[in-house]
Amino acid sequence: MFQYVGPVANLIAALSKLPGVGPKTAQRLAFHLLHAPEAEVKALTDAIIEAKAKVHQCSICCNLTDLDPCQICSDPSRDRSILCVVEEPKDVLAMERTREYKGQYHVLHGAISPMEGIGPDDLKISELLKRFTKQDFKEVIIATNPNVEGEATALYLARLLKPMGVKVTRIAHGLPVGGELEYADEMTLARALEGRRELE
Amino acid sequence: MFQYVGPVANLIAALSKLPGVGPKTAQRLAFHLLHAPEAEVKALTDAIIEAKAKVHQCSICCNLTDLDPCQICSDPSRDRSILCVVEEPKDVLAMERTREYKGQYHVLHGAISPMEGIGPDDLKISELLKRFTKQDFKEVIIATNPNVEGEATALYLARLLKPMGVKVTRIAHGLPVGGELEYADEMTLARALEGRRELE
Repeated sequence: MFQYVGPVANLIAALSKLPGVGPKTAQRLAFHLLHAPEAEVKALTDAIIEAKAKVHQCSICCNLTDLDPCQICSDPSRDRSILCVVEEPKDVLAMERTREYKGQYHVLHGAISPMEGIGPDDLKISELLKRFTKQDFKEVIIATNPNVEGEATALYLARLLKPMGVKVTRIAHGLPVGGELEYADEMTLARALEGRRELE
Repeated sequence: MFQYVGPVANLIAALSKLPGVGPKTAQRLAFHLLHAPEAEVKALTDAIIEAKAKVHQCSICCNLTDLDPCQICSDPSRDRSILCVVEEPKDVLAMERTREYKGQYHVLHGAISPMEGIGPDDLKISELLKRFTKQDFKEVIIATNPNVEGEATALYLARLLKPMGVKVTRIAHGLPVGGELEYADEMTLARALEGRRELE
C-alpha cells in the first residue's frame, strides 16, 4: 500500500498536531496548501512567523500583544478603577464582544486544576497582586469559566484579594439568553433561582 | 471595543483562509500557535515551506510527489497493465487504503464542471492520452466521484478511450457497506438493483 513519506507526510503530521485537527482534516489541509497559490501559503507562514516573533505577554495584564503595555492597558479612555480577571486571551475578546465592559483586564493563562497539576503558582497571580501595589481598584470581577477549575480559581482569588479591602465579584450563573427552562440542567437552574432579582 | 490589529489579527486572517476554518476556529488555532513551544511552530512552518518547495506533479501520473517519477510510477512490483483514473491526489490514498488495487494511477486534478467553468482542457487529460502512446493498458478503471461532475468526466473519458481499443470500466454504484436499505436514497438503491450480481 502506497503512503506518503517525506515532505507530504511531514506536512500532514505537523498539521495534525493542531487542536481539533485529526488525520483526515490534516490531509485535507495539506492538499489545500499544496494546491494553493504560492503567495497565499507564504502569507500564512509569514503571519505565523511574524506573530510568533512579535507577540508576547503584556507586562501589566499578561494578555497577548505585540505592544507593551498592550492596547487596552495603554488606552486612556478605559476605566482604571475596575479589573476583570479571565483565564485566557480569547476570554478578553469574548468580554469585549459584549460591549458592556470598559475597564482593565488580567489574564491568568489557565485555571487551578489539581487534576492537570496546575496550581496557583502556574498562573499569572503574582503579576495580579503586583498590580495592587501600584494601583487602587474599586472592584475586581472574576470572570473565570463556570466550571470546576474556574470556580476553584475564583474562590482562591477571592480569598487572596478580599483582605486587601477590594470589592470582589463573580459573573452571574443563570439561564442562557434565548434558551428554554426545560433544557436547563438542575445546577444551572438552581443557580439561576438563587441569583434571582426583583423586577422593577 | 478592543479588537486585535497587527500580527495577531494577520495570523487569524491567514488561518481563516484555510478550508473549513471559520473565524472562531482561526482564533483558537492562532492562540494555540502563540502558546505552543517555538520548536513545534517552527516544525509546522518548515513543513509547509519544504512541502511547497519540493512537492510537484509526477510527470507520468500527475499525482503530487517529491520524486519524479513518483513512488507508484517507479514501483516495479505494481501492475503496469491497469490504470485507475481519479480526480484528486487524496483519491489515490483512498484507493490505496482498500489494499485491493495494485495498478497505476492517473490524477486529473478536478472533474468536468460547466457550472464552475471547468472543461476537459483544465484537467490532466492530454497527459492521460500521452501515456497511451507510450504504453499499452489492458483496462482503465474510471474512479471519479459518483456525483454529476464525476459522471460527466467518466462519460467523456470513456468516449475518448474506447476507440483506442482499451477496456474502460467504471467503479460500481450501490449501497455502502454497513448501511441500511431504509436510509438509502432512491438513486443509489436503483443503481444497486441495476448492478445486482448472481450469488454463487
